[in-house]
Amino acid sequence: MQDSFEVSASTGTYAVTVGDQLLADVVREHPNAVYIVDTILEDRLPPEAKRRIRIDALEANKSLEYAPHLISELRKAGADRSTHLVAIGGGIIQDVVTFAASIFMRGLPWTYMPTTLLSMVDSCIGGKSSINAAGYKNLVGNFYPPKKVLVDVSFISTLDAEMIAGGLFEAAKICYASNYQAFLDYLACSPGLKMTDEQAVNVIRHSLLTKKWFIEIDEFDQKERLLLNFGHTFGHALEAATDFGISHGVGVGLGMLVAAQYAKRETELTDAGKDHVAHLIEHVKDMIGPRAERVLQSPAHVDLDLAMEKFEFDKKHKSDSYRIVIPNREGALALVSVSKTPETRRKILGAFSAAFDEISWPYQIPQVVTPA
Amino acid sequence: MQDSFEVSASTGTYAVTVGDQLLADVVREHPNAVYIVDTILEDRLPPEAKRRIRIDALEANKSLEYAPHLISELRKAGADRSTHLVAIGGGIIQDVVTFAASIFMRGLPWTYMPTTLLSMVDSCIGGKSSINAAGYKNLVGNFYPPKKVLVDVSFISTLDAEMIAGGLFEAAKICYASNYQAFLDYLACSPGLKMTDEQAVNVIRHSLLTKKWFIEIDEFDQKERLLLNFGHTFGHALEAATDFGISHGVGVGLGMLVAAQYAKRETELTDAGKDHVAHLIEHVKDMIGPRAERVLQSPAHVDLDLAMEKFEFDKKHKSDSYRIVIPNREGALALVSVSKTPETRRKILGAFSAAFDEISWPYQIPQVVTPA
Repeated sequence: MQDSFEVSASTGTYAVTVGDQLLADVVREHPNAVYIVDTILEDRLPPEAKRRIRIDALEANKSLEYAPHLISELRKAGADRSTHLVAIGGGIIQDVVTFAASIFMRGLPWTYMPTTLLSMVDSCIGGKSSINAAGYKNLVGNFYPPKKVLVDVSFISTLDAEMIAGGLFEAAKICYASNYQAFLDYLACSPGLKMTDEQAVNVIRHSLLTKKWFIEIDEFDQKERLLLNFGHTFGHALEAATDFGISHGVGVGLGMLVAAQYAKRETELTDAGKDHVAHLIEHVKDMIGPRAERVLQSPAHVDLDLAMEKFEFDKKHKSDSYRIVIPNREGALALVSVSKTPETRRKILGAFSAAFDEISWPYQIPQVVTPA
Repeated sequence: MQDSFEVSASTGTYAVTVGDQLLADVVREHPNAVYIVDTILEDRLPPEAKRRIRIDALEANKSLEYAPHLISELRKAGADRSTHLVAIGGGIIQDVVTFAASIFMRGLPWTYMPTTLLSMVDSCIGGKSSINAAGYKNLVGNFYPPKKVLVDVSFISTLDAEMIAGGLFEAAKICYASNYQAFLDYLACSPGLKMTDEQAVNVIRHSLLTKKWFIEIDEFDQKERLLLNFGHTFGHALEAATDFGISHGVGVGLGMLVAAQYAKRETELTDAGKDHVAHLIEHVKDMIGPRAERVLQSPAHVDLDLAMEKFEFDKKHKSDSYRIVIPNREGALALVSVSKTPETRRKILGAFSAAFDEISWPYQIPQVVTPA
């Protein structure tokens, strides 16, 4: 069971294969590659993969300060201009290897095997890295796609429910950002916390093919691709405000909920718009709302004033306006600029509160303090 | 007095202007840019350039380990996605800013003003960075050309004779690598340690237009552009063996001399080949040989065994062969692979010795020790 398609980038075309049991094939094809693997997955690597570098998938290692260590490990492993790298891991491993592969001797070819659902449905294509620097999250990064992406659904068995839910939120985001029909098609693939390998392949393929349109039309994040920030600006704020007690994927789910509540409260939605937004809200609630199986623990409390403070500092904003992706009147997504006024801040805080009310998660009542 | 032309890169076309007194114009055009300037040139920056970051042009700062500091300075200076950077300095400043500009928020637009002759005649176009990492020189780097290159010959007055000679060696290298006629045209521009602004503009323009052909036909260093490594593999070894007592530009001059001696001794040159190689040797000797004005001090001694050891470790070699650029039978340059044998090592050491004999510089007699 496997399926392949191609993604075009300015640096050339790369093939994406979604299937199971792909790891052994890679090692057969690249016996002399340097394998860079998430430490907790190293025991899955066949012994034939001799040159290997382990990386702990920690936020601290996804940093410019950590890069010299990895470069030094590559040098010690004997990497030269002709060396192929194979990265095996989730988003952190992908970020670190995208960056290191792009700069080592001015660029090595590499293969990427995503191992978290989030990286399988979303980040594995597009070629972006996000790297922390000087204490700032994702302040630096670049574009350097792999030569080949191999999505092996066998790795899903290593994930817990929260990681699966997080991945599905990113997939839902991509499909909803594309159009309502793509979102319905996604739901028809039976996304859920327990999927068969075949269901997983279908969900991943649909999500990646939907994302492919965005990255081919807008490789460098200038226009269409910006819609894929849906849920992210609010979500990042919640991740940061809980000191990353809320994971990235769940943050995106909550962020979509905040954006949907903002649209419900501040936009005159058409009947179709109301319907689409409600459908999105239901999907998020199914996973983390009061009806969910409680696989996701809500944090002890969320301080929405702190979330608002984090939101203020998002690097995508302009000096006088917030830039957020929210449903328009028809329920379709749009990147909008909203003036930074006390009134706007109240509206955004209101949307945050309404989102948490919707899923019955506890939060600290916001004070609506206006920053100087 | 100024002249402009364009260079095409995969990321777009950029304009190169060669002239004098260009700095004031830049500051007028980009009052809100962040200016990243070599510390020793800061007093040349008009007060209107308010946002400024100083960098000491030290080898240690041209490193992956230094990058977080510059990223942090950019953040403190308030740089965001729309910020324009202006870099003012020689090759080290260019390397550091190429790298930082390429990764800060995944890439900022920038303008480069080279201030050493070496960067004016050569490195300012091509978009490459070379960065030290984990204790290895130039182990990492990338391609990220500026939007605009402004070569202001007024900066030449800040340079000493050794820096001017080094720049001229790079220019001579580019022209000789192109073809013999380009080398003759270069000599007709009156390159020398004391040039009028007009002569300097002519030398720089001829060198850059000659280099433009190489980088447009081979942006990513796959083929033709590799000829521009002429003099560099031998030169780097001499720089490293003297603990950088021999500067980069002078190293390139000496490296061309070593390559020319290798060709004279090991290749059956045609009459034209003999003539072209002899002409190149004469030009280098004019600058640093016994006939030169002794503006260049030879180091106390050069240990050629150590130089050979450094040569062995050049990252451009393959596991079983050296890769060097040397004149072929006709005197034109070619990238050749030479088997790593004791015989080859003896030949290379012989060329090193002959080059130093030619200019009457002292060196330690090589022992021709064969590495294990």
